[in-house]
Amino acid sequence: MASERPNSAYPECVTRLIEEFGKLPGVGRRSAERLAFFVLKSPEPEAMRLAQAITDVKRKIRHCSTCWNLTDADPCPICRSEARDASTVLVVEQPKDLISLEQTGMYRGVYHVLMGRIDPLDGVGADSLTVKDLVRRVEQPSANARGVAVREVILGMNPDMEGESTGLQIASEMTRRGIKVTRLARGLPAGGQIEYASKAVLADAIACRQEL
Amino acid sequence: MASERPNSAYPECVTRLIEEFGKLPGVGRRSAERLAFFVLKSPEPEAMRLAQAITDVKRKIRHCSTCWNLTDADPCPICRSEARDASTVLVVEQPKDLISLEQTGMYRGVYHVLMGRIDPLDGVGADSLTVKDLVRRVEQPSANARGVAVREVILGMNPDMEGESTGLQIASEMTRRGIKVTRLARGLPAGGQIEYASKAVLADAIACRQEL
Repeated sequence: MASERPNSAYPECVTRLIEEFGKLPGVGRRSAERLAFFVLKSPEPEAMRLAQAITDVKRKIRHCSTCWNLTDADPCPICRSEARDASTVLVVEQPKDLISLEQTGMYRGVYHVLMGRIDPLDGVGADSLTVKDLVRRVEQPSANARGVAVREVILGMNPDMEGESTGLQIASEMTRRGIKVTRLARGLPAGGQIEYASKAVLADAIACRQEL
Repeated sequence: MASERPNSAYPECVTRLIEEFGKLPGVGRRSAERLAFFVLKSPEPEAMRLAQAITDVKRKIRHCSTCWNLTDADPCPICRSEARDASTVLVVEQPKDLISLEQTGMYRGVYHVLMGRIDPLDGVGADSLTVKDLVRRVEQPSANARGVAVREVILGMNPDMEGESTGLQIASEMTRRGIKVTRLARGLPAGGQIEYASKAVLADAIACRQEL
């Protein structure tokens, strides 16, 4: 197709914008052109707000030095907050998982973000994650933003094979240090239907059945 | 869904980036989050290249004062080029159409971009297009980048109802001034199959049959 070829008909900076948009995930050549033309047509202050937002995020956002959450202030507001129970640490794979859990408004402890999951096929071991920072938080209360000792670690990895083996490794590090380890409950997803639940979900629902 | 609510768990500038991405066409809330996280994860120079490309496009790109093509130099390289036949003007609706035609490498004349099409239902009349600039180019050769008089106007609107009526109005303005008016050929699309061609396409193919 002609549209795959570098296109000398565009001014150079339009070509460059199309290329940059095309590097975003899920944005193909045609969408990139559409986005570039949208920017071309939109009023200058509006387009500049997008450029500025990108710049701000790259300049201001860091990882929290305690929990690795994304933050514009270090330590992050969750680690800093007096209202949170800093002795309970919920361990998640990604900042996105933290956001989802935080949105429930049900959790009052703090977090630790692993920045990935153990995945031997992808060459990701515990060393490339933030497991050692978690160990340090457990061994030295001063490594926590408010200096509170950790008493319970909740495993909040994804309920799949890599998440499971990541959780097992962390559990063994924690129990060895006398820390209580729990994990997020498995079972039927609220709002779902048993009829359509997978075998694995039903097996969890049976094995982890809760007393009323 | 929880994800529809404003999300206080994100740092403020991440929320703003998600909002700005969400304003782009075809980018919903979830994709905007995905794009924002991609920017967060990508190396700073790479993200800055996108921000800079947006800024550059808004600062540098203007419409050509002769033909309304998008350009970073005025007049645009096509209007300026000595290699092009400035007496033949191909009239298109949008800069994108010009790009597509230019990509064929088959056209050696110049262009005029209407910046839209006559669409009474949308309240778009000839006045909100660049028709008067085209008339000026025809009446005053000095209004053209190289001062060459226009002899032929080729109608290159989209082959649909609005394109058709836009073309008719322009044709009447041009013939009244003694300018030759042609339009892009209609017929079977190369590579297509007669079996699957629409009635309108086949009707064009019969009515506009070409002598060999």
